[in-house]
Amino acid sequence: MEKKENTFAQYLQLLENRQYRQLRVALSDENEVDIADFIESLPQEKAAMVFRTLPKELAADVFSNLPAETQQVIVGSITDRELGEIVEELFVDDAVDMLEELPANVVKRVLKSARPETRQLINQFLQYPENSVGSIMTAEFIDLKKSMSALDAIERIRRIGEECESIYTCYVTDARRVLEGVVTLRELLLAPDNARVEDLMEGDVITALTTEDQEEAVQQLMKYDFISLPVTDHEHRLVGIVTVDDVMDVMEEEATEDFEKMAAMAPSEKPYLKTGVFTLAKNRILWLLVLMVSGMITGGILGRFESAFAVMPLLVTFIPMLTDTGGNAGSQSSTLIIRGMAVGDIGLRDFLQVFWKELRVSILVGAVLSIVNYVRLVITYPGNNLIALTVALALFVTVIVAKTVGGILPMIAKRLHADPAIMAAPLITTIVDAVSLVIYFSIAQALLRL
Amino acid sequence: MEKKENTFAQYLQLLENRQYRQLRVALSDENEVDIADFIESLPQEKAAMVFRTLPKELAADVFSNLPAETQQVIVGSITDRELGEIVEELFVDDAVDMLEELPANVVKRVLKSARPETRQLINQFLQYPENSVGSIMTAEFIDLKKSMSALDAIERIRRIGEECESIYTCYVTDARRVLEGVVTLRELLLAPDNARVEDLMEGDVITALTTEDQEEAVQQLMKYDFISLPVTDHEHRLVGIVTVDDVMDVMEEEATEDFEKMAAMAPSEKPYLKTGVFTLAKNRILWLLVLMVSGMITGGILGRFESAFAVMPLLVTFIPMLTDTGGNAGSQSSTLIIRGMAVGDIGLRDFLQVFWKELRVSILVGAVLSIVNYVRLVITYPGNNLIALTVALALFVTVIVAKTVGGILPMIAKRLHADPAIMAAPLITTIVDAVSLVIYFSIAQALLRL
Repeated sequence: MEKKENTFAQYLQLLENRQYRQLRVALSDENEVDIADFIESLPQEKAAMVFRTLPKELAADVFSNLPAETQQVIVGSITDRELGEIVEELFVDDAVDMLEELPANVVKRVLKSARPETRQLINQFLQYPENSVGSIMTAEFIDLKKSMSALDAIERIRRIGEECESIYTCYVTDARRVLEGVVTLRELLLAPDNARVEDLMEGDVITALTTEDQEEAVQQLMKYDFISLPVTDHEHRLVGIVTVDDVMDVMEEEATEDFEKMAAMAPSEKPYLKTGVFTLAKNRILWLLVLMVSGMITGGILGRFESAFAVMPLLVTFIPMLTDTGGNAGSQSSTLIIRGMAVGDIGLRDFLQVFWKELRVSILVGAVLSIVNYVRLVITYPGNNLIALTVALALFVTVIVAKTVGGILPMIAKRLHADPAIMAAPLITTIVDAVSLVIYFSIAQALLRL
Repeated sequence: MEKKENTFAQYLQLLENRQYRQLRVALSDENEVDIADFIESLPQEKAAMVFRTLPKELAADVFSNLPAETQQVIVGSITDRELGEIVEELFVDDAVDMLEELPANVVKRVLKSARPETRQLINQFLQYPENSVGSIMTAEFIDLKKSMSALDAIERIRRIGEECESIYTCYVTDARRVLEGVVTLRELLLAPDNARVEDLMEGDVITALTTEDQEEAVQQLMKYDFISLPVTDHEHRLVGIVTVDDVMDVMEEEATEDFEKMAAMAPSEKPYLKTGVFTLAKNRILWLLVLMVSGMITGGILGRFESAFAVMPLLVTFIPMLTDTGGNAGSQSSTLIIRGMAVGDIGLRDFLQVFWKELRVSILVGAVLSIVNYVRLVITYPGNNLIALTVALALFVTVIVAKTVGGILPMIAKRLHADPAIMAAPLITTIVDAVSLVIYFSIAQALLRL
């Protein structure tokens, strides 16, 4: 990190001395991700100036690593011809990512600067629904024919490889572009020159559909440890590939989204530090309001027992412990199940197994917590054994309800095609709080004759 | 999925008819991940039987995709010679993964069956601390010399590639194994035959240290979209590489661990469905006990205001709404910050920025929630405007405290080298519950003269 900052300082020096040629030479040796970091750290006019010193091909690579705001600044400060060159150099998926973030008038200008074929391809990609496999795939891949020899294939890779995002997995298609097989560069290279692609290729190909959810592609790619996955349309024609770097970004995004949903927030599009105060507030308010209603329902239930705790106010002091523990026990279970479903470890057919497991776990956990609580209360409030028993019993039942509800509710949500991560939290809190209070005061009324 | 189940049924048929040769032929065309799934679905004796029909190389690939229990069954049913062959075929990182899961007597037998060089390498790898880069790296990579031509390099890759986990990124080392540069197979293949490796390679290599945390490697690889990352020792000697498939596994594990910790559980080693009831219960009890203490503290604070709610029991019914909303508001903030730090978006130096942002967000959120609540209470309990004002004010302050504490506490935990995901939940709940109750009853006593 420090080393990088020193290099950045040198580049800044060159920029301020107007030594543009030296800057261009120095930057040519840098990694595109680091150059993007450098440009991002500069004020707007300087960012555009540095960008324009970059060689054409490097410029496109750097461009695709810049955040949307900086891309917009740069698009605004270059000529249509320069813009057209960058769009042609970009891989289609990166161009589409960029266009999705830019305002409509800029998108128009970008598309106008592109060649007709590129424009058509970009327009096609822009139509895939958000979060579909189509929206993250790339159109530049190596296609081979069955009849080629390994040597022919490698020659073709050397000829067209420059244009492709990934050359390490090659796809074998027939004349109608239907996918027939897949062969890795590794297999081609390690085979004898005259081996036929048909014999080297794997015919039983694992593919994704353009319209499938991108999480499907993530799970397939992870399961099989592939570095790219072919994407076909509904007629089995190969239309693109999804590469491992895109999949890693999706994995990180999806996990972040799940974290946000489970903490009762609308998922955000940008990193925290780059999101404005109003957007952050807006993302949080809706769910807090929903959960507040849940708290009000619990309050209403509590109101029904006003006479009980007017007689014995001590009962009130155990409410936070009871509802907190219920909430925590429930969210332990729901988190495990939601995460398990997200990574594909748990499916809907495991419903009964999950229910049975959570039931047994909750009996164990509930028993331990109740006994600890009972002992503590007997020691702290000597002579109040019945109160201790009331609290311990209520806690035991609460933990069991919380864990079984927490375990099966996300699965029910999924079966109803609702998002388990969103549905679970408010419902579980409301159910568990309400049930635990009713149980608590019912036991209290029975045992303590209130 | 259905297609796979049909194929599995066919294989089972072959197995039951004792048509081992046909089974061997049929399985040879399958993906190793699918064969592992098939073997895992079988009872123990059959699993071992199917495994022994596999050709030697495929056997090792399948073996590394099996869960530890099945690996143990198979190790127990094959001869030392067969075991030795598999260990030699496995990549060192997979062999080490396996040994870390097996009981000591089996490990001894496995190591005894390996060749001395392999044994030495495995022993070296076993010494890297858990979760270090060293523990996930692989020892088999392509090393080149600066003086080679592109053609020489490709010939070397064709010669030694079979043994390597990844051949697509090659590492240039000097005579003392110090890393000098990196060149991709793509660059070698697209360059003229007589181009020198020295001119093609990138000299400024991004590396990881064997002793660094594996999350470092994940973040570097994601940032630069590499498919492998070189790992060096403290003398800059190249000792291994980390490949993208291992990194994806680490990413998924780390995210799962963070989910578990944030839901107050000890992280589990195995998928939910494969974890026993006692282990699940054990993982959950400790933190529930800790959080129960937090609930008791809150209860104790509540006890100090017994006289207040004995006079006005209605006050009690707003407690769940108040503490729930505080808890939810706090966990929204802590989740965003913990996740932001985990993926590297937020650093400790952003402390003041986070504090200032959460403060402003919480004022906005708190104001909206308080106003909604005030209006609701005035409508529901006409004539009780002072109670409505008390609840609204307490809610406003609670949200502000919850969000600022939720935002900065994970950062303080990180500065103290504690795990933010573990530290945050219990402390935030306790602080927010306690503070909100004290504020609530203090305002109530002042406004309502209790």
